[in-house]
Amino acid sequence: MFKIRLLVTALTLAGSISVASAWETLPTEAPAPADNATTAAKVELGQMLYHDPRLSSTGTVSCASCHNTMLGGEDNRPNSMGVNGQTGGRSAPTVWNSAFNTVQFWDGRAASLEAQAAGPVTNPIEMGMKSWDDVVSRLKSIEGYHAPFEQAFGKDAISKDNATKAIAAYERTLITPNSPYDRYVSGDKSALSAQQVRGMEKVAELGCTHCHSGPAFNGPGMFQKFPVIPDGYWEAQHHFKKDKGLAEVSKNPADEHLWKVPTLRNIALTAPYFHNGSVKTLDQAVTLMAKLQLGKNLSKDEVADIVAFLNGLTGEFPKQKIPVLPGTPGSSLN
Amino acid sequence: MFKIRLLVTALTLAGSISVASAWETLPTEAPAPADNATTAAKVELGQMLYHDPRLSSTGTVSCASCHNTMLGGEDNRPNSMGVNGQTGGRSAPTVWNSAFNTVQFWDGRAASLEAQAAGPVTNPIEMGMKSWDDVVSRLKSIEGYHAPFEQAFGKDAISKDNATKAIAAYERTLITPNSPYDRYVSGDKSALSAQQVRGMEKVAELGCTHCHSGPAFNGPGMFQKFPVIPDGYWEAQHHFKKDKGLAEVSKNPADEHLWKVPTLRNIALTAPYFHNGSVKTLDQAVTLMAKLQLGKNLSKDEVADIVAFLNGLTGEFPKQKIPVLPGTPGSSLN
Repeated sequence: MFKIRLLVTALTLAGSISVASAWETLPTEAPAPADNATTAAKVELGQMLYHDPRLSSTGTVSCASCHNTMLGGEDNRPNSMGVNGQTGGRSAPTVWNSAFNTVQFWDGRAASLEAQAAGPVTNPIEMGMKSWDDVVSRLKSIEGYHAPFEQAFGKDAISKDNATKAIAAYERTLITPNSPYDRYVSGDKSALSAQQVRGMEKVAELGCTHCHSGPAFNGPGMFQKFPVIPDGYWEAQHHFKKDKGLAEVSKNPADEHLWKVPTLRNIALTAPYFHNGSVKTLDQAVTLMAKLQLGKNLSKDEVADIVAFLNGLTGEFPKQKIPVLPGTPGSSLN
Repeated sequence: MFKIRLLVTALTLAGSISVASAWETLPTEAPAPADNATTAAKVELGQMLYHDPRLSSTGTVSCASCHNTMLGGEDNRPNSMGVNGQTGGRSAPTVWNSAFNTVQFWDGRAASLEAQAAGPVTNPIEMGMKSWDDVVSRLKSIEGYHAPFEQAFGKDAISKDNATKAIAAYERTLITPNSPYDRYVSGDKSALSAQQVRGMEKVAELGCTHCHSGPAFNGPGMFQKFPVIPDGYWEAQHHFKKDKGLAEVSKNPADEHLWKVPTLRNIALTAPYFHNGSVKTLDQAVTLMAKLQLGKNLSKDEVADIVAFLNGLTGEFPKQKIPVLPGTPGSSLN
């Protein structure tokens, strides 16, 4: 068994020494809310809805288009491309292990996966549906959705509430366990290389795990400020402060530049980085995080060690069947 | 065993009586060309490439985006949406059973699935890659593609030729057998309703199967003229003749309005209809085909019977795994 190792973080906001984190493996099941127990029928329906482009106005964009379940759970683009080629200002977060986020979206404005799932569908630059009433009408018009909804939720169950519950139930199964890091922490000391172990120790020593803590490295706290340390040069390069984060929603100046702490799981697969996707490589992302959050200038070797460790956070992707979506028999979408 | 029933078509171009078709079940395997034998390694690689949006300039459009393997093999749109929201003038043909087409694309300009697969990738309004050299460079930069290409084709095998061969090998597995029609023809007389059998007989009697013949109902001949019978009213509605078909490629006036005979398999799932996707329902498609190709005005009941039969051509979709695509570790696509 793994002997829990408590980390003494080198840096806390108060400057004091505190016990901040332990190395934890990723759970293989995600907790579900009381009103949406995870069932096989909901997961199956949710997988269909998640991959169905008919949840967008043009019939071209599904949840999976930007949060790709065949890749790192996003699209490797700075900003995603929604209906009619439109792009926004933020980079798609990964869907893998999103069940372990306390809040959802970069600005944390959704308190649950259910609430998150409702958003992009009617966002004009994402999936572009005029209203959830339109989504429900379209789903009702697809005969083959009637039975899966009934199996998951009972009779006459096609609704916004149930569609988002099914999508969330499916997302709770999108967990990537057994990364080299997890195997190392579980006792297989050969699972990480010497360089990766150096990177792991450096991550703790620097204080990265003060915020990126817990099994998904996404923190005990919901929000953190980014960037913490003003830097004119890097701001001019990347415009990190152009987007005010949580304050864009709350309109509260105290929330300016507050962001959800993103998971580090599978981070090697989710370039480009940061809320606006402006940083192309993981090396540069590590360098900038140390500089702008912790005030540290890392050496090339230190960056290489940390990146090697972060590559050890790539987990095993569950084998899934390609869903067979019910057809729209005999009639056109548009 | 099924007793082969030969059809006497009521209408041929010569006006004479000829033996034009037999009711045939769909083969469960497709023949492969001599230089591209179907192997498990090629099919697996081809499935990955087929679903990989990184074969497009924006990283948002894969083969599957317009030829959706979760649905009827296309996108239920009049015209597909390529990179940056662009649309063209033709409707995406289904990928299911495309292995049984003698030629590919609406205008039949590709003689094989291999040749077809090369086209959309570098079409500026479809997948938008500048050149196949760029595609090959990108594939080479994705470390996780090296082993699958080697397994399928040997060492240092990432090339346009092998990528399109793999995609074609995968497409040859996209066959939908065991439709109600196939079961009926194989001896299960309960597989089609009385109405569907009436529709089946009507299809033969009218002469639809003169062109839509063979196991995939896509003809022994490669091309047919559409529309055959001039009709000002319907031309004004649907602009069928705006696109000159094969002549757009060959520049030969004799090829004007010649089109590949499309399969009727899974036709109930592939609305809207015709080369320009301008006809929204299967009822209307049947009505117009009778009128514009055969000079017949069908009654409502006849249309309903034929549509019922066409619904019996929806096959069983093979169970496939969602491919796990190799990541683009630590770097951004754009």
